[in-house]
Amino acid sequence: MSTMEAWSWPPRYDPAYRPDPASRYWFPVRETMDPGARDAAIVQRLREVCAYAYQSCDFYRDKWDEAGFHPSQIHSLEDFERRCPVVTKADLRAAQHRAPPFGDYLCVAESEVHHIHGTSGTTGRPTVFAIGRDDWQHIANAHARIMWGMGIRPGDIVFIAAILSLYMGSWGALAGAERLGAKAFPFGAGAPGMSVRAVQWLAMMRPQAFYGTPSYALYLAETAIQEGLNAADFGIQRMFFSGEPGASVPGVRERIQATYRAAVFDCGSMAEMSPFMNIAASAESATGMLCWQDVCYTEVCDPQSFERVPYGQRGTPVYTHLERTSQPMIRLVSGDLALWSNDPTACGRTYPSLPQGIFGRIDDMFTIRGENVYPSEIDAVLNGLVSYGGEHRIVISRAGQMDELLLRVEVTADLDARGPAALERFRQQVAAAVQKVLGLRTLVEVLPPGTYARTDFKARRVIDDRDAFREMAQRLQPGGG
Amino acid sequence: MSTMEAWSWPPRYDPAYRPDPASRYWFPVRETMDPGARDAAIVQRLREVCAYAYQSCDFYRDKWDEAGFHPSQIHSLEDFERRCPVVTKADLRAAQHRAPPFGDYLCVAESEVHHIHGTSGTTGRPTVFAIGRDDWQHIANAHARIMWGMGIRPGDIVFIAAILSLYMGSWGALAGAERLGAKAFPFGAGAPGMSVRAVQWLAMMRPQAFYGTPSYALYLAETAIQEGLNAADFGIQRMFFSGEPGASVPGVRERIQATYRAAVFDCGSMAEMSPFMNIAASAESATGMLCWQDVCYTEVCDPQSFERVPYGQRGTPVYTHLERTSQPMIRLVSGDLALWSNDPTACGRTYPSLPQGIFGRIDDMFTIRGENVYPSEIDAVLNGLVSYGGEHRIVISRAGQMDELLLRVEVTADLDARGPAALERFRQQVAAAVQKVLGLRTLVEVLPPGTYARTDFKARRVIDDRDAFREMAQRLQPGGG
Repeated sequence: MSTMEAWSWPPRYDPAYRPDPASRYWFPVRETMDPGARDAAIVQRLREVCAYAYQSCDFYRDKWDEAGFHPSQIHSLEDFERRCPVVTKADLRAAQHRAPPFGDYLCVAESEVHHIHGTSGTTGRPTVFAIGRDDWQHIANAHARIMWGMGIRPGDIVFIAAILSLYMGSWGALAGAERLGAKAFPFGAGAPGMSVRAVQWLAMMRPQAFYGTPSYALYLAETAIQEGLNAADFGIQRMFFSGEPGASVPGVRERIQATYRAAVFDCGSMAEMSPFMNIAASAESATGMLCWQDVCYTEVCDPQSFERVPYGQRGTPVYTHLERTSQPMIRLVSGDLALWSNDPTACGRTYPSLPQGIFGRIDDMFTIRGENVYPSEIDAVLNGLVSYGGEHRIVISRAGQMDELLLRVEVTADLDARGPAALERFRQQVAAAVQKVLGLRTLVEVLPPGTYARTDFKARRVIDDRDAFREMAQRLQPGGG
Repeated sequence: MSTMEAWSWPPRYDPAYRPDPASRYWFPVRETMDPGARDAAIVQRLREVCAYAYQSCDFYRDKWDEAGFHPSQIHSLEDFERRCPVVTKADLRAAQHRAPPFGDYLCVAESEVHHIHGTSGTTGRPTVFAIGRDDWQHIANAHARIMWGMGIRPGDIVFIAAILSLYMGSWGALAGAERLGAKAFPFGAGAPGMSVRAVQWLAMMRPQAFYGTPSYALYLAETAIQEGLNAADFGIQRMFFSGEPGASVPGVRERIQATYRAAVFDCGSMAEMSPFMNIAASAESATGMLCWQDVCYTEVCDPQSFERVPYGQRGTPVYTHLERTSQPMIRLVSGDLALWSNDPTACGRTYPSLPQGIFGRIDDMFTIRGENVYPSEIDAVLNGLVSYGGEHRIVISRAGQMDELLLRVEVTADLDARGPAALERFRQQVAAAVQKVLGLRTLVEVLPPGTYARTDFKARRVIDDRDAFREMAQRLQPGGG
């Protein structure tokens, strides 16, 4: 068996390397090797990365000493997963409050910091990302490799249609495009008038590849129409997305593909995890995302115990950097929700996958009659039905002693015109499909198209009436207020 | 005499080079050498660059064949200046219309294009900048060197507060900061809410250096006050500006210095000329700008004949790239207006300088009683007077057979309160100061503070009433309409 390409700690990449133009893989060995052999290499690397972090910063040393964990204990993936405590975003914020501005998990000298980025919230303390000079190159190498896997090639124009500021998505795409030998076109987004200019430049430059968020791609397509242009004429071949789950949401995904007549790829874990394309689709495995385990090690875990769940089950991804020296994240809890699989991939890469992408946040989960329900599962069911009108609400209420789930679902104008019998058939179809996925009986109400206002992809779709019910019930009890 | 550092065609820079930390100069020889010896090196380089351009693209070959110019004719700066025809922005637009998208002045293979940027106008065909992979590094090297000259050092945080999109200013500052070994913080600008976030991050990160436009720096200082912050507390030491002439305009410059308690440096020729910091201030020569002749060769020329004017005179800068291979600009007419000087510089660099920076556009010139007048000259005179209220209008009219210049000038509230005698003294002071600079008698009217609405730095200050007068006079003539 050949050795894994450029596999060393700390990473050392040849900046001039490019694969054979005919190769599907940037690093054929690393991408298609026996998973057991890769895992053995990852165990060794985890020991190296953890030893480095333990030596280089207070954050991990203090945290691990307290937990009784030491890098020398790692002899298997299970050792690592059971003994090494997880890190949360709150831990990072606390560390930056304690040791401003970069936190006591910066493992290189401050003079090595190459770029500063951060979270862009307006309330509370933002998190600062300090990315080392070498790490910027490692991120660029990883992203170039994964973008190659999407079919992007040297010389392609890569149009970057996301704001270039604190947000790491656009910068990661840019670094990858540069390293790949593409023509990077960092157009950005966000300022007034930029969308009109973007569609004019897209029509003029005809880029082969496009990066942005799904919602902005759809907005640009609408802007094109207003400007007398058609997104399908831009000649874009490949579109890759992060920042929102849309590119893995059936319905949204197909709409983008149809509007641009382009292949759509989802990617992106978390800004903290840059190279965030550690989870990403490939040209032949275009739905969902692969877990590029030799870039970052992904475990999909139970959201309470943070123990790895078996393939085929859902949980929250927990990520570990294998190639970062500046702010390495070791067992960072994403809080996202995904189902993972170890089925063979169409592209031949021997990685596990997230076949439905990231489909929610563990915080969104609610419990009804003892069953855990994620609103995104209901989204996915509805988006798979042709007569679904595009919006719905989930109302949780209490009738008698039982929680009840009521789905209020818009239908298409087409179905609406076909009369009561067709609507009733759709109602039953929804109820059956939801019961199958959730294992729960659900009340379904069908509504005319356009009942709910369209805002954005983060529409608040869950209405929980149980608290109101409980408060009322309490007041009615003897001795209640 | 030592050899000029990294002086070769095509350029080859050592990406790891940094000067001695104590050195004022990045390249001591190139920056302080005998100007005659430098000019001799530039003559040789012009011959090489022109031979390269002649061989590599239709644009220059066709243009020069038609003009009877050939690179082999260059044996002196004068040969080059007299024989080589100038290029205008209209020539570039026509070339891109003829050979889209990059124009037939792209001198490298399309596959070598690393970044695409462009002009950001919304009307007419924009100009596309195609910057080659090697050129991006040459630009970064030149900018790092010039930013070193401003006193920016490795490890400094460089906060970039200008939009990251088509605009080259922010990208040039970023490339320079990265190459210098600074901590680049490409915050950007332009999207709603970004100014509030910018001042929060400035207060939190306390960057050593700031890049933006002068007007945006002043706007951020106002935003800081609204957020309960003070720009003077950000701890910024050095601010460098391009995109607007404000950093060389007395009054604006001092206002920024006082608001931020920071040193202010002007820089920037034209986006097409990237490395656009080819004209830039230095730490010890902080007012105006030096012409870094070994980066780009600058001639200040008569706006009609495009012949170099003597030092001490004003004209329009004409620039020639000495280190670009992708879209080299050879005698590109800026259309800007500057006065140049060959006086010794405070920093010891043996470059000519533009002591007042860029102070207008040749298109803004008007002629009155045979004298060429640039509104910016009047701006500069007024901004130098302590009782000037910050706004004025220039009214050109015709009384009898003579053109008349009327200056309507706001005074400060302070002067306004001091009564008629003080106002009359100021009126006479303005008239004398303007007469001295323009060689023209001028009517001056003083006005209370706040007479004119404040819009932005590009306020329309010239009102030419002569056309109305002429039309009226024509109608009054026998046989007139």
